[in-house]
Amino acid sequence: MIEANPPREVWGVMADNPILGRPLLSRVGMVGGGPVARMTYQAGIGLGLSMRVLAERPEDPAALAAAGVELGEPAGLAALARFADGCDVVTFAHEMVAADRLEQLVARGHELRPGPGALLFAQDLRYQREQFRVLRLPVPPHAPVAAIADVEVFAHNHGWPVVLKAARGRGIWIARNASNAAAAYAQAGPSMELLAEAFVPIEREVAVLVARRPGGESVVYPVVETVRVDGMCREVVAPADIGPRLTSQARELALRIAGIVDAVGIMALELFLADGVLLINRVKVRPHNSGHFSIEGCGTSQFENHLRAVLDWPLGDSRLTAPAVVALAVVGDESLTDPRLNIREALAVPGVHVHLYGSEPAAGRWLGHVTALGDDAAEVRARVHRAAAMLLGANR
Amino acid sequence: MIEANPPREVWGVMADNPILGRPLLSRVGMVGGGPVARMTYQAGIGLGLSMRVLAERPEDPAALAAAGVELGEPAGLAALARFADGCDVVTFAHEMVAADRLEQLVARGHELRPGPGALLFAQDLRYQREQFRVLRLPVPPHAPVAAIADVEVFAHNHGWPVVLKAARGRGIWIARNASNAAAAYAQAGPSMELLAEAFVPIEREVAVLVARRPGGESVVYPVVETVRVDGMCREVVAPADIGPRLTSQARELALRIAGIVDAVGIMALELFLADGVLLINRVKVRPHNSGHFSIEGCGTSQFENHLRAVLDWPLGDSRLTAPAVVALAVVGDESLTDPRLNIREALAVPGVHVHLYGSEPAAGRWLGHVTALGDDAAEVRARVHRAAAMLLGANR
Repeated sequence: MIEANPPREVWGVMADNPILGRPLLSRVGMVGGGPVARMTYQAGIGLGLSMRVLAERPEDPAALAAAGVELGEPAGLAALARFADGCDVVTFAHEMVAADRLEQLVARGHELRPGPGALLFAQDLRYQREQFRVLRLPVPPHAPVAAIADVEVFAHNHGWPVVLKAARGRGIWIARNASNAAAAYAQAGPSMELLAEAFVPIEREVAVLVARRPGGESVVYPVVETVRVDGMCREVVAPADIGPRLTSQARELALRIAGIVDAVGIMALELFLADGVLLINRVKVRPHNSGHFSIEGCGTSQFENHLRAVLDWPLGDSRLTAPAVVALAVVGDESLTDPRLNIREALAVPGVHVHLYGSEPAAGRWLGHVTALGDDAAEVRARVHRAAAMLLGANR
Repeated sequence: MIEANPPREVWGVMADNPILGRPLLSRVGMVGGGPVARMTYQAGIGLGLSMRVLAERPEDPAALAAAGVELGEPAGLAALARFADGCDVVTFAHEMVAADRLEQLVARGHELRPGPGALLFAQDLRYQREQFRVLRLPVPPHAPVAAIADVEVFAHNHGWPVVLKAARGRGIWIARNASNAAAAYAQAGPSMELLAEAFVPIEREVAVLVARRPGGESVVYPVVETVRVDGMCREVVAPADIGPRLTSQARELALRIAGIVDAVGIMALELFLADGVLLINRVKVRPHNSGHFSIEGCGTSQFENHLRAVLDWPLGDSRLTAPAVVALAVVGDESLTDPRLNIREALAVPGVHVHLYGSEPAAGRWLGHVTALGDDAAEVRARVHRAAAMLLGANR
């Protein structure tokens, strides 16, 4: 592990709070160097923190911004433990640290927020589905796949198509028949744990964020509609236009799940809306793509509330700051257009907030996002799309 | 000069913009390590910048936050020139760099924004008053003081009391008679250039920010009322409750002065309201205490618009985001209470935004500020005062 920026002598305050009789933590470390870590670091500056980040590469978005950077593989215990040694509390910008590593850090006395139990829900879809099914929460019909025969049994019970999903990491196949399924199963290979899931006729997708303190105090963010492109949440419209009944259901479900998961910090609940019913898709326990709109769009951003929750500080107002807020990802394409070279054109679009992550352009890489606020979602959408197109060179 | 954090290989993009045919600057350096530099750095993260800052001490607020820190005396040409060598454009968080140093940097080919001419208006009150008087702008009656006899002549023409002000830096004396004046003159000493000014019966003070690009494109911020304690702007209420006529006058005056000064970036115009008339107090050409409310209180913060203006990028919406916005400074006192230890209590006040600068407490030192938004200025004021009192230990 290379020390990119050596720790400053004073980068946090650790002291007993004489009234509350519990330590006031402030030395936060975040594992991860991507956009989420960059924006969390930015929010921490406002709170008087000098967060440290554990990034893999010096050119990672958070490493470019943070005074306190350590470079190291988040997979390795040595790097993680050395990083955690200098922190009061360690939090995560992704769910890539293996469960056994997390348990080892806890055993060494490090304070992880969220803890390994909560992270497991985000890491292992099979575990998550099964836990939620037992609690009679609305999950799609599903079954573990240990052999190709399991898929055929599942199809017999639930019909084709069957959706095959990797339990960990990325990987989704839609099998329309047995030969499709066999091909997908072969492609996934023997090392990938698979889950068979009923094909859900998705009308739309929504997401809800919850910020939750260790003691359980929580705030819920507005329900948003998410638009996925190539499997990634690309566009977020707040609030989701799903009516008051489904909105309440989604918020209550998110709060309940945050308690079940024992989330600390931000938890994102991704939901399908199918046949008028909400079904659980995924749970993440970190600031999430579906919450980038909250920087300008809510009283307190998801990044600030993540830090406040992780530090067990009172949470901030999560309400919308405008009737309609839209955020759109700026994702690199094959042309390798650098949005930094087009920012002037994008900023000329009225009222848009351009966020760039400092990364070199690459196809499929998240390079930034654009947010706008207004009274009418369609009008706001038009502006963010115009600005994002400018960033990707539409004017050239 | 010590290199606190060595420059990363990639920290900006410098390229020709093929459409506009002019270079797209992005490597911004800011001279200064205080709260203004810290908050400007924070805003730059959102724009995809990796600003560099020239700070004096590693424990300066901006040095604690920024990845790109150089340590050095801003008074020295060597430190300044080395810093500027790595930047496309250099801007300032204070007006402490001497005019001849600035001219030397320009002669070496460095791009300073604002330039030495604009900075001189902020540095030299005598120069500023004289320039504005010639243009028949509303300034208090004034005269340079070369000898104590000049004060007596001035008093003869304008009556007692006479206000004596240092032309450069801090220093204000209110002389009620000739012996008062002699004492102040002696205290100021022979090296301080003085200005005699008529005593103005100040009813209230207001300030207006303008963000201005090199070509002159400008946006004006809402007129705010400023409340001074010990000579420092401590509280800001937006908008100022001075009626539409004076509000228009203040905005038009600020725009006109921004052009006269040839400001680039943020210019702050501080005004007295006396006998129903606006009089020019000071001009600053940098993000200003009176604009901290804009982080949450305006469509685009003064820090982001400073960077956009300095980079000659289109400026953002400066309108208020709520009917009433109040920002209150958190200034250290003799008790050396550390607001970082009280942040939990402050964040429990509904809807307040706490900003801490990471500094160790010291009497008279700006340690942070608190902002709140709402419909009614009195209600909002009450909340920021409660939160600021909590930060300074009211609950202990």
